[in-house]
Amino acid sequence: MKKFVPSILASMMVMSCSQLSTNDSNELIVKDNAPKNIIMIVGDGMGPAYTTAYRYFHDNPATAQIEQTVFDRHLVGSASTYPARVSGYVTDSAAGATALATATKSYNGAIGVDVDKKPVESVLVWAKKQGKKTGMVVTSQINHATPASYLAHNESRHNYNEIADNFLAAHDNIDIMLGGGWQYFIREDKNLVEEFQTKGFNYINNYNQLTQLPSDEKVLGLFADKGLPWALDDSNKHRLSTMTKAAVNQLENKNGFFMLVEASQVDWAGHGNDIAAAMAEMDDLAKTLEYLENYVKENPDTLVVLTADHSTGGFTLGRDGDYLWQPDVLRTMTMSPSAIAKNLAKNSITLSYVNEMLNFNVTSDEIKELQATKAEAQRSLAEFNQSTKIAGKMTPSIEKALHKNINHIIDQRTVTGWTTFGHTAVDVPVFAMGTQKELFEGLSDNTEIANNIFYLLGKK
Amino acid sequence: MKKFVPSILASMMVMSCSQLSTNDSNELIVKDNAPKNIIMIVGDGMGPAYTTAYRYFHDNPATAQIEQTVFDRHLVGSASTYPARVSGYVTDSAAGATALATATKSYNGAIGVDVDKKPVESVLVWAKKQGKKTGMVVTSQINHATPASYLAHNESRHNYNEIADNFLAAHDNIDIMLGGGWQYFIREDKNLVEEFQTKGFNYINNYNQLTQLPSDEKVLGLFADKGLPWALDDSNKHRLSTMTKAAVNQLENKNGFFMLVEASQVDWAGHGNDIAAAMAEMDDLAKTLEYLENYVKENPDTLVVLTADHSTGGFTLGRDGDYLWQPDVLRTMTMSPSAIAKNLAKNSITLSYVNEMLNFNVTSDEIKELQATKAEAQRSLAEFNQSTKIAGKMTPSIEKALHKNINHIIDQRTVTGWTTFGHTAVDVPVFAMGTQKELFEGLSDNTEIANNIFYLLGKK
Repeated sequence: MKKFVPSILASMMVMSCSQLSTNDSNELIVKDNAPKNIIMIVGDGMGPAYTTAYRYFHDNPATAQIEQTVFDRHLVGSASTYPARVSGYVTDSAAGATALATATKSYNGAIGVDVDKKPVESVLVWAKKQGKKTGMVVTSQINHATPASYLAHNESRHNYNEIADNFLAAHDNIDIMLGGGWQYFIREDKNLVEEFQTKGFNYINNYNQLTQLPSDEKVLGLFADKGLPWALDDSNKHRLSTMTKAAVNQLENKNGFFMLVEASQVDWAGHGNDIAAAMAEMDDLAKTLEYLENYVKENPDTLVVLTADHSTGGFTLGRDGDYLWQPDVLRTMTMSPSAIAKNLAKNSITLSYVNEMLNFNVTSDEIKELQATKAEAQRSLAEFNQSTKIAGKMTPSIEKALHKNINHIIDQRTVTGWTTFGHTAVDVPVFAMGTQKELFEGLSDNTEIANNIFYLLGKK
Repeated sequence: MKKFVPSILASMMVMSCSQLSTNDSNELIVKDNAPKNIIMIVGDGMGPAYTTAYRYFHDNPATAQIEQTVFDRHLVGSASTYPARVSGYVTDSAAGATALATATKSYNGAIGVDVDKKPVESVLVWAKKQGKKTGMVVTSQINHATPASYLAHNESRHNYNEIADNFLAAHDNIDIMLGGGWQYFIREDKNLVEEFQTKGFNYINNYNQLTQLPSDEKVLGLFADKGLPWALDDSNKHRLSTMTKAAVNQLENKNGFFMLVEASQVDWAGHGNDIAAAMAEMDDLAKTLEYLENYVKENPDTLVVLTADHSTGGFTLGRDGDYLWQPDVLRTMTMSPSAIAKNLAKNSITLSYVNEMLNFNVTSDEIKELQATKAEAQRSLAEFNQSTKIAGKMTPSIEKALHKNINHIIDQRTVTGWTTFGHTAVDVPVFAMGTQKELFEGLSDNTEIANNIFYLLGKK
């Protein structure tokens, strides 16, 4: 594991000789070379299988070579993700985000608090104190675990309303927030959007408004009830990159900025064991990183760091003894398995209808399987509706049953494996570009990533 | 992906300024800084979940912090492992080893030959041509896919006898070989061991002889019929590190050496979905790397590179929705699940007997499950023996059924997941230490690892 001071020394080693200061104080050297802008990206749930898979998804099989991805160009190392000892070795997104945001190991569920439930300061809030502008751009609701850990403090990630209230209280610390979350910000008990407007925030609620943000003003952009639609289903399949560009434009200023970007729904696809949705979310993230790759070329005083909080789903490329992973059908899909399931729940399941929505040809056996799944789910629902209600027993969902079946068809064709609907503990990849990227080389613990950012922002 | 020339430039960047030659020819600069000794280690099947898991297996839960492993200290990047396009995205060990040994992408099954089945030269053979001594130390039979690709050429990894014959023909290229393989080297049709002796090789067949090798002479050491016993069952649980030390001592000379070391059986444990065996093999590899870490400190003109050819088993830390991985029972096991299964096949299955062998306490339900598995396997075997033989139909194995059942018990307790008895395509970790380790930073393709070694050995 890279230790903090040696990693600073390592970064000094890779500076060209002309850059090497004769002053042997780390502080001054880092100050001289500190990035003006820092963009921290979290690919939620994006373990090593996801970035590997994206290479093969992105590959053009008609060429002799496997094409390089933007991830391939900027890999610098890996990160360990374990939470505080009380939660074992497998982290959730809350403890993972709290570690990345505050350099503090905490328990699973913790939002910006330590194991004693005491608030801990995030790199975003610290950056604001140093006079930088700050922003967050996510595809989940903006008060979801990862963004929440950068701006709020709560003993539980599930307290969405309290966290939203917390965001309002912390409004001084943030200049732009883009993502989903109407449900938590426009509530029966209070309308936080109006309160944000009172505090001087411009509120927008559709992507088109991103091109005409009032310069030098604060912005709250909410585009969905909870998370944004799946990339596959959204009106803008690259909504993360669109929002990121808009936020960067809005945040640019002479003192620099700190921004959190999260590809939130890689994780959600993993939880659903949905490889089609996962690859589309990865594609949106790749486009975001490609934009930032160019941004760093033009603004070399910027640092971009990308990692994951953990890996989701126990996703594997290959399964059941087959030495294959075949992403072909994923490359042409234009609708998410969940949206297709919604349609199949409502409409009659025919070969032509299913083929049209999947954009690849299924077999008659697969159609029969889908029809049987629907009939079985309908039977379960009817039985459930006729039976005495038992508290806590879930209503059977025809959509969910069909979604699972569609995923199964895609998994068989792509030879995709999964071991869980939850998380696994495998180390995650780390990518970095721009000024001081060398700090993130080798193996880092997730807390070291935050410590390095604190250090670059002048915190001892 | 790190490109070859830029990676050389990158390595120049990290040299201290006093080392920087004013001569702008890469050739001379590298020659000045080329390592004298190169040790290439392959953790066969060792994907990122294995090195992560080893950290938590190795952790002492009584301490506040998670202990760092030798892998953590030396991670420098990752490697892509895909074979030639003809074999898709998931490699086997033969194509993987051919890429690492010769910088050539080939088809699955290829041993030191390209897609046209033409022989391609390995870094080991090239090193010998440059006047270095060469060696290979493995825990498989020495003519298994990985070592074979460094010394032999064959269109199929399955031609073990031909590959062994090939080894004899290539005897000039190798100075020490340690591993298993009596079955292929002492055959009815020929005794290759005697022929090696005729060529001047000292033959040894037990580990004790490793401490008294005749200096400056060639050595063939075979210690088992095929692969060595599992680390958990072997008389020396750290036989890879013992053999590596002996080989390094034997190979040291003024011109330096190239040595291949393979922790072959990490892969075999993965194929068997056997986490207990996997962690013990990883422990032997860790001990080997710790020895080499010290060796590099004392001999800084040495380069050590460790990677995997692919990942095996679709192994995940966590499964079935549980946010847990609990390696506790693995830390105390002293016998492999396969050896335990052998005993249970022969003897009566009782609670005390099973507890004694596993070194942890099973439940009475687990005992009943083992007894039922044995009874069922015995029934299948009896039926098979009474039925008409069908060509190719496997004889049911009581041992295998019990082995699978023991693995299942351990997987449940450790919360370990698997998706395949084969390989997966996830990128694998890369570790490096010593002179020119910077060449291996970031993402490398497996062929780039070989190209970098060729380059350090002066090949254009």
